[in-house]
Amino acid sequence: MQLTPLKCITIVSERFLKKEIIELIKNSGAKGYTITDAVGEGSRGIRASEWEGKNVKIETIVSDEAAESIIKSISNEYFANYAVIVYTNEVKVVRGDKYI
Amino acid sequence: MQLTPLKCITIVSERFLKKEIIELIKNSGAKGYTITDAVGEGSRGIRASEWEGKNVKIETIVSDEAAESIIKSISNEYFANYAVIVYTNEVKVVRGDKYI
Amino acid sequence: MQLTPLKCITIVSERFLKKEIIELIKNSGAKGYTITDAVGEGSRGIRASEWEGKNVKIETIVSDEAAESIIKSISNEYFANYAVIVYTNEVKVVRGDKYI
Repeated sequence: MQLTPLKCITIVSERFLKKEIIELIKNSGAKGYTITDAVGEGSRGIRASEWEGKNVKIETIVSDEAAESIIKSISNEYFANYAVIVYTNEVKVVRGDKYI
Repeated sequence: MQLTPLKCITIVSERFLKKEIIELIKNSGAKGYTITDAVGEGSRGIRASEWEGKNVKIETIVSDEAAESIIKSISNEYFANYAVIVYTNEVKVVRGDKYI
Repeated sequence: MQLTPLKCITIVSERFLKKEIIELIKNSGAKGYTITDAVGEGSRGIRASEWEGKNVKIETIVSDEAAESIIKSISNEYFANYAVIVYTNEVKVVRGDKYI
């Protein structure tokens, strides 16, 4: 079974940014994404769940180039004003050609 | 603290396949699994949430051998007809002997 | 874009331990965490969902030192009596200085 090494990018953000971030990652070359509901607490010390609803955790599997583009775009758009978390990890994907 | 290197397999599928996939991974040697609800969009361009309920994200921590068996079985059973996502990543697990 | 290599620790536990585990990881140096609801089955063969509600999956991104501290504390506190899963994986984080 052939596995393709790709990047999984995880983005955790306040829920009202969900649609915008999905547009952004699709424009950066992502072919799909998975969203789960989440709550949390970050360096600002406020539980998102207490004041404006849950967070969302968006995951997308992409090429190195798309990963770099997504990270750059999210940094530029959101990091000044929002508590967005972004990280990548290495994954090996079945049918990896579908993600590029 | 001793950590055991193992594979974490993540499977994202349409919800109605959940029971079948759980049986499949248990038959392949997985000792447990974790399921979260998810929604998403894939290469077919259809949000699962719009037409038949949420997706499920199934994670299981297994040996390399069990990982290979799970990947092979899911590919054979579902890839021709379903939008199933399967990928692995390397994890280090506390009490890793429980997963083998 | 600079990415910082850090540890992502994932903890899956019975739900009633959630508050305690959050306190524990914060006392070990974690600056934040993300929680998602989960159900599952482990080596004890009992679905958590059948008898006492869902599990929780707690993720936190931390330094190597904090990771070691969290793993040690959870092992000492819970492993004798509870079906807690703990594993780490390598991630690269944007604005990584916020997590240390």
